[in-house]
Amino acid sequence: MKSIFTLRKSIDARLVQLNLKAQPKNLYEPISYLLALGGKRFRPLLVLLTAQLKGTYNSQILDPALAIEVFHNFTLMHDDIMDAAPLRRGKPAVHEKWNQNTAILSGDAMFVKAYQLITKINPSHLVLAMDRFNETALQVCEGQQLDMDFEQLKEVSKEDYLEMIRLKTAVLLGFSMELGGLMGGFNRKDQHRLYGVGENLGLGFQLMDDLLDVYGDQQKVGKQVGGDIVSNKKTFLMINALDLARTEVRSQLDSWISMGHADPEEKVVAVKKIYDHLGVSELLKIKMDAYFEEAFRLLNTIDCNKEGLEIFTHFARGLIKREG
Amino acid sequence: MKSIFTLRKSIDARLVQLNLKAQPKNLYEPISYLLALGGKRFRPLLVLLTAQLKGTYNSQILDPALAIEVFHNFTLMHDDIMDAAPLRRGKPAVHEKWNQNTAILSGDAMFVKAYQLITKINPSHLVLAMDRFNETALQVCEGQQLDMDFEQLKEVSKEDYLEMIRLKTAVLLGFSMELGGLMGGFNRKDQHRLYGVGENLGLGFQLMDDLLDVYGDQQKVGKQVGGDIVSNKKTFLMINALDLARTEVRSQLDSWISMGHADPEEKVVAVKKIYDHLGVSELLKIKMDAYFEEAFRLLNTIDCNKEGLEIFTHFARGLIKREG
Repeated sequence: MKSIFTLRKSIDARLVQLNLKAQPKNLYEPISYLLALGGKRFRPLLVLLTAQLKGTYNSQILDPALAIEVFHNFTLMHDDIMDAAPLRRGKPAVHEKWNQNTAILSGDAMFVKAYQLITKINPSHLVLAMDRFNETALQVCEGQQLDMDFEQLKEVSKEDYLEMIRLKTAVLLGFSMELGGLMGGFNRKDQHRLYGVGENLGLGFQLMDDLLDVYGDQQKVGKQVGGDIVSNKKTFLMINALDLARTEVRSQLDSWISMGHADPEEKVVAVKKIYDHLGVSELLKIKMDAYFEEAFRLLNTIDCNKEGLEIFTHFARGLIKREG
Repeated sequence: MKSIFTLRKSIDARLVQLNLKAQPKNLYEPISYLLALGGKRFRPLLVLLTAQLKGTYNSQILDPALAIEVFHNFTLMHDDIMDAAPLRRGKPAVHEKWNQNTAILSGDAMFVKAYQLITKINPSHLVLAMDRFNETALQVCEGQQLDMDFEQLKEVSKEDYLEMIRLKTAVLLGFSMELGGLMGGFNRKDQHRLYGVGENLGLGFQLMDDLLDVYGDQQKVGKQVGGDIVSNKKTFLMINALDLARTEVRSQLDSWISMGHADPEEKVVAVKKIYDHLGVSELLKIKMDAYFEEAFRLLNTIDCNKEGLEIFTHFARGLIKREG
């Protein structure tokens, strides 16, 4: 049984060794660069901690766990092009530091690297792992497409929004736990439940992101508070606000949304006041807590090793309490 | 045993069924669009005809064969963005018909589709097929990166150029034949030889492309003759010409290359005259024929079914004689 700290160290150590091939430099350097920017390594940790719910740790599960981290970073490299995002973890995104073609092609190569890592799974698990990884990867693409499609729409329903974040974010956390369950030795039924735990955690975390963007501590969140408001992003808060606002409040909200060159700070303060008036953050918290509760309810239906469960729960609870 | 015509029909029929999922439309439509633009289906045919060298045809090999066609089309979707190519097979490229973000994301989804197809291989072959597919896919990325890197260089050696086309084009034909050999039931040693056959054919075909760009029949080639000359592409002809040209001829060649706004037709006629003077097309033909001869020499070291070998040879000879 390993601690979160120890697992985190083995993840980082192995990630550094992944990309030793030096040539062509313009293909491989951006991969090392992006992976070295850090991140919480949340997904591979989830894989390893889930496998440990069976009571033991086997280092052979590390590479398939890293497949998910590398895949996730590949999607960031391509998403940053699509979203024209200049920064990633406070540093220039790959398409900014190099150029767009480099970010496309290095991203493709990174995707192959993810497949190389998942292929290292115990061969008896390979067919299932590949089928589920492929399906998950397609769903993540679908989520990103819906996210871009929604930017062009005037209104998005709560149901459509939740389906979008499920695809874009939650299914990969679900798959992380399913894969951990598969490698740890859980039966297929428990693997499905573990998927559900991850999926519900993912939905909750994404709603928490929406909340923190507006109500978070800027220092802890690590980015400008209110960015979603400034860019008129249809978050769970905004969708609920548009749903609830009537007469004068609705006109105020519409006018902030349609204002081309509003002062960002003024706009954030004003829209936040509307959110407070309508109580949309309470609605979000109710929804978010329901996802977290469902995650733990599902987890408790699975027969787990006591120590493994303690470590896992400590990790998950820590994430739920984060303020940034 | 199946004819080329019959195999070609089953490839096209199956490709149409691949992408039935309708939503999100902007993710999946570009995949169907690109696949429907046609193409010779050269790579999956190579897989199937190679498997048939063992004497039988088993329809279970069709999906893994199509993985290579789908992968190849994925690379075209992304390469067309990187090369800013407006047309693909005479029709608007995906990034032109939709937009660049769509071409990035649909390409990524298409890549997953390729992995879904290769995963349908007989499970006892999956580990090897995945390892080899991953390695090949990385090499194809490396080839595209070198091709882009070479655009920024003043001079490229013949050796570096041949290595670039080997990675960008030939390794995928090698893998097509290796995969056909694996699924057909050849031993590992013969699979390696079959890889060599495909790789040598690929190198020969790529040199033939360089030749046809300048000396081909425009109607048969299906694109403007001399496009490589107009864009100063460092093809095998150009690299040899730069290598051989001395004094006055070298100055002429250099001046056509550095001329910013030369009349395209004049430039093609003039550079072609230099090529003829230096005899670089003869040098290319010698190199190309050596690759084709090596391919058939290797093929003849393998114990093949007679009828299967006849069909394969007919197919390969037909490609070698193509004029466009």
